[in-house]
Amino acid sequence: MSRVRVQNFSISLDGFGTGEGQSRDAHFGHAGDRLHEWMFATRSWDQGGSSGVDDLFVQQFESGIGAEIMGAGKFGHPGWHEDPDWKGAWGPNPPFHTPVFVLTHHTRPSIEMEGGTTFHFLDASPAEALKTAREAAGDRDIRLGGGATMIREFVVAGLVDHMHVVVVPILLGRGVRLWDGLEGIEKDYRVEATSSSSGVTHVTFTRNGA
Amino acid sequence: MSRVRVQNFSISLDGFGTGEGQSRDAHFGHAGDRLHEWMFATRSWDQGGSSGVDDLFVQQFESGIGAEIMGAGKFGHPGWHEDPDWKGAWGPNPPFHTPVFVLTHHTRPSIEMEGGTTFHFLDASPAEALKTAREAAGDRDIRLGGGATMIREFVVAGLVDHMHVVVVPILLGRGVRLWDGLEGIEKDYRVEATSSSSGVTHVTFTRNGA
Ligand SMILES: NC(=O)c1ccc[n+]([C@@H]2O[C@H](COP(=O)([O-])OP(=O)(O)OC[C@H]3O[C@@H](n4cnc5c(N)ncnc54)[C@H](OP(=O)(O)O)[C@@H]3O)[C@@H](O)[C@H]2O)c1
Ligand SMILES: NC(=O)c1ccc[n+]([C@@H]2O[C@H](COP(=O)([O-])OP(=O)(O)OC[C@H]3O[C@@H](n4cnc5c(N)ncnc54)[C@H](OP(=O)(O)O)[C@@H]3O)[C@@H](O)[C@H]2O)c1
Repeated sequence: MSRVRVQNFSISLDGFGTGEGQSRDAHFGHAGDRLHEWMFATRSWDQGGSSGVDDLFVQQFESGIGAEIMGAGKFGHPGWHEDPDWKGAWGPNPPFHTPVFVLTHHTRPSIEMEGGTTFHFLDASPAEALKTAREAAGDRDIRLGGGATMIREFVVAGLVDHMHVVVVPILLGRGVRLWDGLEGIEKDYRVEATSSSSGVTHVTFTRNGA
Repeated sequence: MSRVRVQNFSISLDGFGTGEGQSRDAHFGHAGDRLHEWMFATRSWDQGGSSGVDDLFVQQFESGIGAEIMGAGKFGHPGWHEDPDWKGAWGPNPPFHTPVFVLTHHTRPSIEMEGGTTFHFLDASPAEALKTAREAAGDRDIRLGGGATMIREFVVAGLVDHMHVVVVPILLGRGVRLWDGLEGIEKDYRVEATSSSSGVTHVTFTRNGA
């Protein structure tokens, strides 16, 4: 069976997956770009970038993925659903190239973008959303795109097979925490940590037996 | 000038320096020994242990240290100050072998132990406590022994030159957090991460210019 994977989810050392004060002009609030600078410096992102362990992880983002599920907070800043023209912050050709299921209490008709991305809007439990995404993905894997709130929901529901979290050596102090309410989940996973010369540490959770 | 150092301070992936429910029989509450198993497996701790990067860090614990400052919560479980015979949980010969200054609102006369450890009790600001500890330490360094509450106080006061934090791949979910209130401190430090095959990641903060 296809796997359910989190890839490249970046958090601060103090565990925040986004900063405070998200808005149309600041998708990560006061965190700015700091959670993702490690990624922008890789060859996958930029021809002149580095091709070490950071790049190997970035390559997993697209590899073998047939659909993404994301939270409403990733799709748009607070209030996006009052804007009938909002199509996400990625421009006409978003970097997903598969169906993307946006979990939200404010559903709207699907939006077809360039390059293979179609946004569908679902008001559904994690298990139901996953069933729908699996049908769209066929044999391929499902990526959970974040943010932290929806990843936590899926972990608690026992639906995550593999989780790649990148710990960035900054202290954000405020924002949305990834780890809240996940006491003891390490029992269900093999956890490995790999630090990189860029300063980040890749932490992977692989479900026992998966 | 001698440096002020945190060594071997172990936290869970979600940032807790101790678990919930500390008592006379459970110094780390529900965390049990899990925050320190990596340390018990080193050669410094046990002749049959490993001598890789974890062991190198453990060796720094004693090296060049002339005094320790610790918090009341490390010296004893909640309520220890009502026990006139309480001398800490380390037995007659504690592993410090220097003067140890216990920060507490419940001071008592100094206690001389075997092996060079003497506990002194101070109700003082971090800067005042450090002045007293420096006099005792001479040229040697001051170790900040924890817990998380007192380390945070010293970091906020700008008094920490070097901080070695060990991130253990478990999720405690509750207890005392290390990182609260420390937004942006990475600007004052060089931060490095080194993962070990034992599964832990050593994160060191070295003050700029120190
Ligand atoms: N660090 C990273 O690598 C990374 C990756 C992705 C995103 N981000 C950032 O993370 C932030 C968003 O994260 P977040 O944790 O605030 O929010 P989120 O996880 O993206 O979305 C949570 C929201 O999705 C909707 N939702 C979730 N589960 C649902 C369900 N079962 N049924 C119906 N609706 C559901 C709800 O919104 P409604 O009730 O409003 O519909 C909920 O408030 C953004 O700043 C984004 O840029 C960071
Ligand atoms: N993870 C590790 O590597 C590690 C290392 C050391 C300890 N620990 C654990 O951490 C826990 C203790 O940590 P904690 O954060 O709860 O407490 P703590 O930092 O050890 O002590 C805090 C307490 O010290 C006293 N204090 C602090 N600053 C003071 C000041 N300026 N003046 C006077 N008194 C002051 C106050 O107690 P009073 O008001 O009661 O006097 C305060 O509540 C224990 O479970 C211990 O086993 C873990």
